[in-house]
Amino acid sequence: MPDKEHLKRQQILQAAIKKAGLKAMAFNPGPDLSYLSGLDFHLMERPVILVIPGEGTPALILPELENAKVADLPYPVQPYFYNEDPATWSAVFHTALEESRTLAGKIGVIPRRLRMLELDYLRAAAPGLELVSGQELISGMRAIKDAAEAEKMEEAARIAECALAAILSSIKPGITEQDLASRLVGRLLQRGSDPELPFFPIVSFGENSANPHASPSARILKDGDLVLIDWGAAYQGYYSDITRVFAVGDLHPELEKIAQFVKSANATAREAVKPGIPASEVDRAARQVIEDAGYGEFFFHRTGHGLGREAHEEPYISQYDQTVLEPGMTFTIEPGIYLPNRGGVRIEDDILVTEDGCRSLTNQPRDLSQLLPDDHF
Amino acid sequence: MPDKEHLKRQQILQAAIKKAGLKAMAFNPGPDLSYLSGLDFHLMERPVILVIPGEGTPALILPELENAKVADLPYPVQPYFYNEDPATWSAVFHTALEESRTLAGKIGVIPRRLRMLELDYLRAAAPGLELVSGQELISGMRAIKDAAEAEKMEEAARIAECALAAILSSIKPGITEQDLASRLVGRLLQRGSDPELPFFPIVSFGENSANPHASPSARILKDGDLVLIDWGAAYQGYYSDITRVFAVGDLHPELEKIAQFVKSANATAREAVKPGIPASEVDRAARQVIEDAGYGEFFFHRTGHGLGREAHEEPYISQYDQTVLEPGMTFTIEPGIYLPNRGGVRIEDDILVTEDGCRSLTNQPRDLSQLLPDDHF
Repeated sequence: MPDKEHLKRQQILQAAIKKAGLKAMAFNPGPDLSYLSGLDFHLMERPVILVIPGEGTPALILPELENAKVADLPYPVQPYFYNEDPATWSAVFHTALEESRTLAGKIGVIPRRLRMLELDYLRAAAPGLELVSGQELISGMRAIKDAAEAEKMEEAARIAECALAAILSSIKPGITEQDLASRLVGRLLQRGSDPELPFFPIVSFGENSANPHASPSARILKDGDLVLIDWGAAYQGYYSDITRVFAVGDLHPELEKIAQFVKSANATAREAVKPGIPASEVDRAARQVIEDAGYGEFFFHRTGHGLGREAHEEPYISQYDQTVLEPGMTFTIEPGIYLPNRGGVRIEDDILVTEDGCRSLTNQPRDLSQLLPDDHF
Repeated sequence: MPDKEHLKRQQILQAAIKKAGLKAMAFNPGPDLSYLSGLDFHLMERPVILVIPGEGTPALILPELENAKVADLPYPVQPYFYNEDPATWSAVFHTALEESRTLAGKIGVIPRRLRMLELDYLRAAAPGLELVSGQELISGMRAIKDAAEAEKMEEAARIAECALAAILSSIKPGITEQDLASRLVGRLLQRGSDPELPFFPIVSFGENSANPHASPSARILKDGDLVLIDWGAAYQGYYSDITRVFAVGDLHPELEKIAQFVKSANATAREAVKPGIPASEVDRAARQVIEDAGYGEFFFHRTGHGLGREAHEEPYISQYDQTVLEPGMTFTIEPGIYLPNRGGVRIEDDILVTEDGCRSLTNQPRDLSQLLPDDHF
């Protein structure tokens, strides 16, 4: 729902637009537009564009039939409606850009979101515009969550944890990965997740858990299997993303051992998080524990990624990301050790950077929980 | 999975490209690229482009890390890999276009799919290219399903019907719309739907069913309610989309009456379907029944839409669509009557046009089924 918070975000972006020497930024439907306006539109044949000028009132170009969405907005925005006749749309774009004084100059856009459909209308309406990437301005803003955003992420974590609790009794020999993943999706929705989940859960048994990107298969759970579940919920557009492992009966001792190392790498990385250090340092902290244990070559992905309105966003907890951590940043910490053809362990939490360290939004126990193969509930 | 069928599709498109006076068509990831190649890529920061020239071997530009996807393809395609350094990507685009002889001339693209990200690489690599919409060429091809595609749609219908059967016993006073929708999603996945559902089910009770676009809410089911469920499954990328209504206990007689009229409009429209008539004639057939019953003003949407790899595609069963029906076309027939604040009925089937009429891929009974409010199972 649009609220005063969105006005504040627009004002912060306007200051950044001026500082970057841009005339405006233009957004089509997606997480950036929702973040700035509280409005959701489908990405359809009909173009929708929000123009935020460096100074003055934002302009919103949209179909007449969407007019209910912009009635009584709690911030100033000038809507420009077009009707069902595409021949008239260009003129509406022209008027919107003219009245928001953005017919010429540099406009920032998001190249991996904006489509040729919208581009063509912008260019036809204002041939003098120079369209450049404004990705960094908005990513930088979105990376710092305010208290309300962090609360939504915490609720998304809670929904995910409750949904997991509701399927634990189904983790029994005989069930397939696909079946368990389907039950988990049903529970995520029942426990209050938005219908648009951040991603379809990964459920992998035994040797399949050695592939961090496995899709749930018809593989049947058997006694002695490791079970890896990587799942998340969405709450009011904000995501959670968690991974935990379970043992059904007695595991091979080496798998139990790597679960200890991964848990320790996860804890060490969380302890390392604080404002002022580069993201890469958190990656280093996790990696060092696993390297010291002699499993460095089996931890072949980055330690984490930013999380919020997208399942992967800035910052990236990788050796290549020198982003300096700030209070309000949210990201995953998810070290793993994967032994080919045998099994893999990953333990993933969602972290909020605080003034003096960090807080985990996810509270699911991090031990390798042992489930008994027979009537364990 | 890529197979020989994809080669055939590429060849048909090549003939259409030449006939339309284009040099080539270029596709980014999405339903068109999957339809032509059998390959699925995420729409990411890294551009992926399939160039199909009017003559000669198609070119596929993609990241090195995706190379496993194009090993041993059952049709000729020339891959052009780029590495992790974006500074080198332009040169790869240039080589791909040069070797496929598409550095200049008109290239057809899909404006509502192609992003500025890919456009910028294409334009930088070949400033002489004129990029025009090639939407109609590919939509026209995709509208006619072959036997294998129709079979996948039929399987998607079967999965949806089995999933519904599994939740019928949950339609009892006390359950909420959200809870019922969540259970249905869980069952769709358990019965074998692809994780990517065509859409989140609409479940609406009582007066909520009067809004054809309702989202499942916390509304609790009570005795005497109408229940409307609009749901679908996906199977190997192909969709089903069905709507049925149920009565819990005794309905108001007018709701029972409109259910009869809608059922009759659905049957009349299905009987009208045959090759050679315009799509608008099917809309007229359904609408006439409802107008004759005196409820014309309460049927305010089109009668249906094309269905396949997208939940809405060509043709549209509307007064405005003069597309001439051909064997192999698949679309929904979904007349409805919506009485504001009281309730609405829609009955939706998925239809395949045959040589001499049509066949319904959906077989769920179309009567208003009465479920008893107490222990009805």
